[in-house]
Amino acid sequence: MSTKRIIVPLDFSFAAVATGIAKKKGKLDLGVIYCHNPCVATAVFTTNQVKAAPVLFSRRNVKKGRIQAVVANSGNANACTGEKGWQNCVESASLLARLLKISPEKVIVASTGVIGVPLPMDKVRSGIQNAARNLRPSVSGARDLAAFSQAIMTTDTKSKIVSAQFPLDGEKVTITGVAKGAGMIHPNMATMLTFILTDASIGHSSLSYCLKNSVNKSFNMLTVDGDTSTNDMVLVLASGQAKNKIEERREGLVKFQGSLDLVCLELAKMIARDGEGATKLVEVEVSGAKNFVLAKQVAMAVAKSSLVKTAIFGNDPNWGRIMAAIGYSGAKIEPTKIDIAVGHKNKQIQLCVNGQDPGFKEQKAIQILKNKELKIKVNLKQGKAQATVFTCDLTPGYIDINASYRT
Amino acid sequence: MSTKRIIVPLDFSFAAVATGIAKKKGKLDLGVIYCHNPCVATAVFTTNQVKAAPVLFSRRNVKKGRIQAVVANSGNANACTGEKGWQNCVESASLLARLLKISPEKVIVASTGVIGVPLPMDKVRSGIQNAARNLRPSVSGARDLAAFSQAIMTTDTKSKIVSAQFPLDGEKVTITGVAKGAGMIHPNMATMLTFILTDASIGHSSLSYCLKNSVNKSFNMLTVDGDTSTNDMVLVLASGQAKNKIEERREGLVKFQGSLDLVCLELAKMIARDGEGATKLVEVEVSGAKNFVLAKQVAMAVAKSSLVKTAIFGNDPNWGRIMAAIGYSGAKIEPTKIDIAVGHKNKQIQLCVNGQDPGFKEQKAIQILKNKELKIKVNLKQGKAQATVFTCDLTPGYIDINASYRT
Repeated sequence: MSTKRIIVPLDFSFAAVATGIAKKKGKLDLGVIYCHNPCVATAVFTTNQVKAAPVLFSRRNVKKGRIQAVVANSGNANACTGEKGWQNCVESASLLARLLKISPEKVIVASTGVIGVPLPMDKVRSGIQNAARNLRPSVSGARDLAAFSQAIMTTDTKSKIVSAQFPLDGEKVTITGVAKGAGMIHPNMATMLTFILTDASIGHSSLSYCLKNSVNKSFNMLTVDGDTSTNDMVLVLASGQAKNKIEERREGLVKFQGSLDLVCLELAKMIARDGEGATKLVEVEVSGAKNFVLAKQVAMAVAKSSLVKTAIFGNDPNWGRIMAAIGYSGAKIEPTKIDIAVGHKNKQIQLCVNGQDPGFKEQKAIQILKNKELKIKVNLKQGKAQATVFTCDLTPGYIDINASYRT
Repeated sequence: MSTKRIIVPLDFSFAAVATGIAKKKGKLDLGVIYCHNPCVATAVFTTNQVKAAPVLFSRRNVKKGRIQAVVANSGNANACTGEKGWQNCVESASLLARLLKISPEKVIVASTGVIGVPLPMDKVRSGIQNAARNLRPSVSGARDLAAFSQAIMTTDTKSKIVSAQFPLDGEKVTITGVAKGAGMIHPNMATMLTFILTDASIGHSSLSYCLKNSVNKSFNMLTVDGDTSTNDMVLVLASGQAKNKIEERREGLVKFQGSLDLVCLELAKMIARDGEGATKLVEVEVSGAKNFVLAKQVAMAVAKSSLVKTAIFGNDPNWGRIMAAIGYSGAKIEPTKIDIAVGHKNKQIQLCVNGQDPGFKEQKAIQILKNKELKIKVNLKQGKAQATVFTCDLTPGYIDINASYRT
């Protein structure tokens, strides 16, 4: 199982164009994914009650059956745009379907960007036409996928693509995910846009089951700023071209789940690391909880605390803020049992033992906090369950980006 | 009912000293309130499960009966300090009690500052001795109260004192509140330290009933950063020296409640306005809700959103972020009914009508957003209940303050 190289799964093609929907001149802002055969598809969508038109549209199409193409744009979320927003979404899908000679029901539409502004349809139309024309007749290479990943970026500073591959019955199966997300990142269900493509031959119910498992371990354990977006989706398309029947033996499903977990987890970490203004990736690991739900509740409270996140930015081993967050998490805890440590790779320092300062060395703690990847470890000593949440520090950069995002 | 001047209620004296507990040289950091007669007392405390020693100690004493003195320090929260922290708290109360010739059970102890560091008891002891010596034999003036308010400040930039006075049966009744709070501010139950002093003659059950009402309309409708502290308390002491029996006529209780509401609300607004790094006071008013709980839930989600708060700092009329926060608040809403406006005094502009942009004038919205006091108005159009939450903008100043609070 390898994740180093970017590998395009069999049967998929990509195109990306600059339409001017995004404000930045020349930025790729509209992308298309095309599969040469209809795919088994499953997805999870935002739990926000305010759902963008493309979320409602795509949810309907995923339910209906197979999916063969995706059109995604950045720069405009097509959310809170009323009946016109819905029509624009339908028109985009119909146009792409006609150009690709497939049914509009086989098209997914995804949008991300500013809320409440109508899509500039002239730009969208010409963008879809150009992208469809650019789609390579044969299968695309990694460079086309990289261009697609650029087209869905908003405040992201890095493109996010992860590939995993495993052998099954002498054939290779590839799973490759591409994601965007940097702000308005807080689960529940599929935060941000993520498209996962695989050539695995797998049925719909297995695929849905595996996606739910993976999302619960990755994207739903992620918070940047506690704001849940109106446009989130994680879509998986399985082309079946690898020919291996995943479900024929238990081994297949185990390997598929493991690789899908890996792709989702790596993408979630990439999003946390690239959180708006972030300088550090922070894993909050809570152990010793009575059950997973309580462990997650405590980990989320710590990961969401603005005071904890600013202290981490400032390399300040202020564990009192971590204790305060644990205390207001809502989980029943015993303050005088709690241990707190901070670590980087195999270095670690205890900041709090049984609810109190054990007399830790300030300078040693600061040295650990200066690393770009940190782990905050909380042991509640009440049980055996654990949960890990991914987040980043809170910095002046977050405010710079968000004070003027729209204007 | 007036709130302009600071009026010291009958029977109360104050003292404040610089002990060196706070890092800043010469800062007043320990204060004492003394009442010449034992007071009817009631209080609300933090709901954080991690409670500082002074919270546990003071809660016990308030339950036991009358209160005659308060000792409060800034610079150290005496939280997560174990058995030693409890002993230090008991010792402080006992020392003050001995000097004032009262029972230690009549003393309230309050601390605010860094968590997890033992109190420097040598400084605390000499501070209490000096403060007790400085207490004027007669009733204190407003200047002594102002010094006390300085002594409890941490990252506060302004001292927070509000007085209200009302006539009853030909005599004046005074209610004066003094508060500190700027960060780690999120209710439930009494965020920060607030001491409310009154010369009203009122029984314990009426006083508790009135305090609960006032807190639910003020401090529990306040959020700066969503972090609930380990040390919060709102204490009311009633000396009874105004001689008017508040409960004798319905009018008395109504007037008392009105004045207490006013004091608490003004202090809550002062805290929001002085939120760490804040440049603006923001009132989030949600109307048209099915009930108060749902209205508050929506208002809190908007008031807590980092994205909404940074947009306000940046004068960006990005109402989509407000919609997103309403959508993830957890309250059942109807997105296509929602109106959103932003206003200052009697100026107002609709940013969203029935879930969509009505074509508002960007420049007019920016002009309104540039004011230092703003109202965000959300109408859910589902019922008649409403709630108002107080918050502030999120700025680089918040991060400056909190990245290096401890070190």
